[in-house]
Amino acid sequence: MDVDTPALLLDLDRVERNLDRMAALVAATPVKLRPHAKTHKTARIAKMQLERGAIGICCAKLGEAEVLADGGITDVLVTTEIVGERKIARLIALAARATPTIVVDDARAAAAISGAAIAAGMRIDALVDVDVGQHRTGVAPGAPAVALGRAVAALPGLRLRGLQGYEGHVQHITTVPARRDANAAAMSLLCTTAAAFEAAGLETGIVTTGGTGTAIFCAGFGAVTDVQPGSYVVMDAQYGDVQGVGFESALTVLATVISVRESWAVVDAGHKSLSSDAGAPRVLGVNAELRLAGDEHAKLLFDGVPALPLGASVQILPGHCDTTINLYDEYVVHRSGTVIARWPIEGRGRTR
Amino acid sequence: MDVDTPALLLDLDRVERNLDRMAALVAATPVKLRPHAKTHKTARIAKMQLERGAIGICCAKLGEAEVLADGGITDVLVTTEIVGERKIARLIALAARATPTIVVDDARAAAAISGAAIAAGMRIDALVDVDVGQHRTGVAPGAPAVALGRAVAALPGLRLRGLQGYEGHVQHITTVPARRDANAAAMSLLCTTAAAFEAAGLETGIVTTGGTGTAIFCAGFGAVTDVQPGSYVVMDAQYGDVQGVGFESALTVLATVISVRESWAVVDAGHKSLSSDAGAPRVLGVNAELRLAGDEHAKLLFDGVPALPLGASVQILPGHCDTTINLYDEYVVHRSGTVIARWPIEGRGRTR
Repeated sequence: MDVDTPALLLDLDRVERNLDRMAALVAATPVKLRPHAKTHKTARIAKMQLERGAIGICCAKLGEAEVLADGGITDVLVTTEIVGERKIARLIALAARATPTIVVDDARAAAAISGAAIAAGMRIDALVDVDVGQHRTGVAPGAPAVALGRAVAALPGLRLRGLQGYEGHVQHITTVPARRDANAAAMSLLCTTAAAFEAAGLETGIVTTGGTGTAIFCAGFGAVTDVQPGSYVVMDAQYGDVQGVGFESALTVLATVISVRESWAVVDAGHKSLSSDAGAPRVLGVNAELRLAGDEHAKLLFDGVPALPLGASVQILPGHCDTTINLYDEYVVHRSGTVIARWPIEGRGRTR
Repeated sequence: MDVDTPALLLDLDRVERNLDRMAALVAATPVKLRPHAKTHKTARIAKMQLERGAIGICCAKLGEAEVLADGGITDVLVTTEIVGERKIARLIALAARATPTIVVDDARAAAAISGAAIAAGMRIDALVDVDVGQHRTGVAPGAPAVALGRAVAALPGLRLRGLQGYEGHVQHITTVPARRDANAAAMSLLCTTAAAFEAAGLETGIVTTGGTGTAIFCAGFGAVTDVQPGSYVVMDAQYGDVQGVGFESALTVLATVISVRESWAVVDAGHKSLSSDAGAPRVLGVNAELRLAGDEHAKLLFDGVPALPLGASVQILPGHCDTTINLYDEYVVHRSGTVIARWPIEGRGRTR
């Protein structure tokens, strides 16, 4: 492949098969698909997801929602709390050209957004974010969530639509039975809270949860309306070790051997080209162990003389797709190794 | 500070003091300063280094050298091997508008560059890259290095200028005596090789080595001509733990509390805003432990009720400066908390 390195390769055949497969899997259940764009970070793939039946797109940050809106994607759920005057002003500006749904886990924060929406003559869709065991954001399930739901329902600038309860702590549990059990515990908290919402006369038209590791499990719980997987589009080494997920690796980093010694070769991709926050990158098609060796290098450790000459290309499976994609300005898109396009990753670095 | 978050803050007072201090420390020795721009990734700071007496600038990749040249910095040492036709073509194009020095650790790779230089009517300065114990790139010290030196000296498109022997494995050894001893072992290999070069009649006008953890130690070895520290400009949590280095932390990530629970607060900066490849980020001025919690979040774990309200700003010390800077498009530059400028990080993502 005649591509300068390091480069982020996207195997479009595999991406399409992954998109088709998840669409078909979810279509066979009562729930809908609201895939997460925090992984792929481009309106182009979001459109491919919508074309296959997704009912909307998730993103983690307003900055991602803004570039999705620039790309024509307007139905966006921002899955992370929006706090502070600057962020609220950006949300209001976004709501003038898109249809964002937000999540809230605090009544005063919700009231601040409501006030800004009223001032702008708007009403913004909102979900109560419930902590279903991840212990990150979200209000505690049950009574605290219902109390917040009542507060949100009473805010004239917000329109309560339901609940979000993301079980991020479950996604990478390796074996199917253990993951299914942990997911059921999380879904129990979410469904109990949804039932309490209904008993209190609060809206539950959206109950959104799930990731690549659990989406199909979540679809079996009656209160759930949609699932928000992201990584399934491309997968990575970390998800590759999770049993029963079954999507194809579609993302690799192409690197070049720049140095060869008696028992190792060095390639031109290090921490600035391959994330290491979750799961170690692996070299493909070469019988060697990859070890990141600084910002710009990785070592391929061989059992004996390296089987790769200077200048050889290797493909490396990223440890974690989201954070590796976030290091690149573009995908080099190929089918079976033939480069067919370069797609800008317009959400790269949009962490605000 | 009225800045949208997450933001990369650069304390310019501290940067200037760090630049002054390293310039003064090196000026008191026989060696010169050739600081590494792979850390700060901007021509603006490179110029500040040159104004304080640096004899040139290092960078890790051609892509960095290209943006430095765009910014008017032309004397650049590319400290990583350049391999492959695409890279060589870019080197030749760079050499038409700048004065790059390259490093080589393989005779055939050197010959390929020499051939391209001859075809372009050029001669490119080159150093033999010697492995002084890091076991990453570089030819083995002693006879193999001399053999490569002879080969390079015989190439009409290259001009042998000397040696590079970077001891990256030594930089973060915590205590001064252990770091000094490990550095001496590496310098022994470099100086022995330099002596062998001299005995063979090979050029040793440049013998470059050293980083923030060792620069001043390296200056005590007679063969060494210049040192190439990078991190000293801003420092980070990892270098903060290295004893006897003595530069100031000048880089923080500003984040906002977006969720508060019974014993933790969540801020809006995760793996996409704070690298974790070397050294853990730490929250400053708050009695809490920071734990990265996904791509977009970090948790501040308190002993009891969080001491921070929703919407509060916190400053976080990056674990590793180079890879954290590489996540941002700009520095928010301040003096004592007053924002005075925004500087683009034009080398961000320039890993090719």
